[in-house]
Amino acid sequence: MKTQPRTLSGFMELLPRQQVMMDQMMAVLRETYSLYGFTPLDTPIIESSEVLLAKAGGETEKQIYRFSKGDSDLSLRFDLTVPLAKYVALHYADLAFPFRRYQIGKVYRGERAQRGRFREFYQADIDIIGDGKLDIANEAEIPAVIYKTFTQLGLKRFQVRVNNRKLLNGFYAMVGAAEKAGDVMRTVDKLEKIGPEKVRELLTGEGICLEAAQADEILRFIGIKGSNGDVLAALEQYRGRNDLFDAGLDELGTVTKYLAAFGVPEEYFAVDLTIARGLDYYTGTVYETTMLDHPEIGSVCSGGRYDNLAEYYTDKILPGVGISIGVTRLFYVLNEQKMLNEAVNAAPADILILPMTADLGSAIQLATRFREAGVRVQLYTEQKKFKGKMNYADKIGVPYVVFLGEDEISAGVCSCKDMVTGEQVKAPFEETLARVQAGLALRAAGTVIKG
Amino acid sequence: MKTQPRTLSGFMELLPRQQVMMDQMMAVLRETYSLYGFTPLDTPIIESSEVLLAKAGGETEKQIYRFSKGDSDLSLRFDLTVPLAKYVALHYADLAFPFRRYQIGKVYRGERAQRGRFREFYQADIDIIGDGKLDIANEAEIPAVIYKTFTQLGLKRFQVRVNNRKLLNGFYAMVGAAEKAGDVMRTVDKLEKIGPEKVRELLTGEGICLEAAQADEILRFIGIKGSNGDVLAALEQYRGRNDLFDAGLDELGTVTKYLAAFGVPEEYFAVDLTIARGLDYYTGTVYETTMLDHPEIGSVCSGGRYDNLAEYYTDKILPGVGISIGVTRLFYVLNEQKMLNEAVNAAPADILILPMTADLGSAIQLATRFREAGVRVQLYTEQKKFKGKMNYADKIGVPYVVFLGEDEISAGVCSCKDMVTGEQVKAPFEETLARVQAGLALRAAGTVIKG
Repeated sequence: MKTQPRTLSGFMELLPRQQVMMDQMMAVLRETYSLYGFTPLDTPIIESSEVLLAKAGGETEKQIYRFSKGDSDLSLRFDLTVPLAKYVALHYADLAFPFRRYQIGKVYRGERAQRGRFREFYQADIDIIGDGKLDIANEAEIPAVIYKTFTQLGLKRFQVRVNNRKLLNGFYAMVGAAEKAGDVMRTVDKLEKIGPEKVRELLTGEGICLEAAQADEILRFIGIKGSNGDVLAALEQYRGRNDLFDAGLDELGTVTKYLAAFGVPEEYFAVDLTIARGLDYYTGTVYETTMLDHPEIGSVCSGGRYDNLAEYYTDKILPGVGISIGVTRLFYVLNEQKMLNEAVNAAPADILILPMTADLGSAIQLATRFREAGVRVQLYTEQKKFKGKMNYADKIGVPYVVFLGEDEISAGVCSCKDMVTGEQVKAPFEETLARVQAGLALRAAGTVIKG
Repeated sequence: MKTQPRTLSGFMELLPRQQVMMDQMMAVLRETYSLYGFTPLDTPIIESSEVLLAKAGGETEKQIYRFSKGDSDLSLRFDLTVPLAKYVALHYADLAFPFRRYQIGKVYRGERAQRGRFREFYQADIDIIGDGKLDIANEAEIPAVIYKTFTQLGLKRFQVRVNNRKLLNGFYAMVGAAEKAGDVMRTVDKLEKIGPEKVRELLTGEGICLEAAQADEILRFIGIKGSNGDVLAALEQYRGRNDLFDAGLDELGTVTKYLAAFGVPEEYFAVDLTIARGLDYYTGTVYETTMLDHPEIGSVCSGGRYDNLAEYYTDKILPGVGISIGVTRLFYVLNEQKMLNEAVNAAPADILILPMTADLGSAIQLATRFREAGVRVQLYTEQKKFKGKMNYADKIGVPYVVFLGEDEISAGVCSCKDMVTGEQVKAPFEETLARVQAGLALRAAGTVIKG
């Protein structure tokens, strides 16, 4: 009696070719994050429930994978922020601040299973944690990292949208809606989806009960559009009425000013007054990143500035700023939208060697020489007909097949077939190597996402 | 009321410097496995218990992290072999065989907590799975991958030890101990620990009940030592008495013969008749890898040939060969033995820029230029005294600090201090970049493990 093999729904399991692309995405993330001086971190997937759920509640807690093992009440992490808070509080004395870390790892949420929703998924986070204070320049650097990351992945049409929670909270105080700021922000967040008329209705309706004049002020405010310079200039009109607003405006100005120096072109960055981010703990700059041709996907990378990362674990005040890419969902979307670059070399090897002799010694030596030169090689040693071997080569999508028979061995050459052009060349090792390396370099020039 | 932050015992959580070294180890593993044409795989950490435990039983089952979520009976994977079996059975139609995959991932075993034992740990596995058949050449390639992997990591004094289960089973049949072969192999496995006298006692004792003559034959057999050629020659004396033995001897001969072609020097590879590997499912070549200066650690990388990977899931016969490195334990041991290379550049950045002006624009531009050249940069923008900033540089172990004040900006230069030599040079960007890159190249030449 066999057990039916299956993978749980909501758990991504890729076929080899796609997995290689996923891994290439991960490699780009690691490399780019490193370029900005973030150090890699790895924390356990299982934590004590007491520690992991110190802050959680409501919706989050329901989704947790929580269980007992022996006497221990354990949970699987549901994000990478809580483990970071624990890590920084626990290892505080051993860390240098500002502490800049990246972490790419799986997290778990028992959400209702549906297409494109995952229960196990990768997040790729960066955070900069200060000890007591953290300079505003860090808030300008985060969108620069995101710009570089997406650009390196090959994405062209995207925009990092930025707002500031001080500015928002200051503004809502200005119009006498400070106590309703949370509800108002959640409503305003729907602007793109439902339009200004509907937002106005909700703001003045039973739930929030703003006066018409207040709603008008708010709609005028979030209606401020234009270049970043235009938006900042328009915001200057509000200056002097609320200290928090003024501080937020200064921060937004500083972030915008430094972005060019960080190498981010203006069109990849927009001050957008409708962005608030749902989470209450953001206190300064907030970020969302949208794919311009796929606004329906929503933000693929979000985050912001917070004032106290680890308040549940320590008395130390640890302000920080960070963002998170939902890698599994991003990969899923890119795949669905046919945006993954099929031209990427996703074969398990660069060369497949087909030995044509009973003794494999020469073929193995040839494989070893190619590998020593850094070329990825598979040796096909199964007893199959020639057609079966070539079928295998096609199936794995290997770029080059090298044949080695008695003739080649005695002549000191090998026959190398380019599987794309079909061209087959008999040549000595060094010449074949040069040809293969040149071809591979061309292929490697492409990005994971189609340009 | 604060929650005490803690990490569960048996779960490795590294400080930044060590984490970088761990990541460098992982990078070497990925790169080397790829060189031999293995494709990366990633499977869920959670599987249905029915699927994951189709085969398991006894000791394994007790250690499983198993729990319910909704109606689902779930378990965390305890190795990477069962998920591979599931994957190959499930995706059989989409895979090309022989299927060569590597997987580096966390696995979970609720073992008794003790120093150096982990409940969450990384395994790094390679396997080659055939469809119906799998050529013996693959069994010679596995030790070659291991040799290359450990050599790339910087380990010098290690040895891959190889035996063959057909040879062993054939031999035990020859001496009339076929039905006791399992018990005998487990006893013989202890030879190094307890010595031949004690092994003899156990073999003839109450548990196994071999006759003295049988025990003598066995001790003579496992006493065969010498160069691989010597051992193979000695084994030839047994040829012709048992078909299985003869087949095993042929395989051992072939594996040994091809290893040189695979580039493995003789001293890194030993035919060792005492090795059996506990697991019943190995059927051909078996491997263990020992660190010559630390035999007490036991095997750091083991595996072998098996005849049917996925028999619990499919009727397809899927023979394979594979090995597994216990990365977390290996890292722990290397760290304990002070074998990690402290000279490795494990800082989060190559350059720390200290802006000496209120406006950060020029410093940010400089950071951007270095990053565009591939140099990892941190900008230190906190308001601290000079000493505090230099303390930070020391603490993160950054190789270079670049100072940028009004003087430097107006002269179009930057001041770059080598934090090892203390030498400080004022020079234009290109010159500084060249100096830094040359220094970094020197550092990058080292391996993770001390030579």
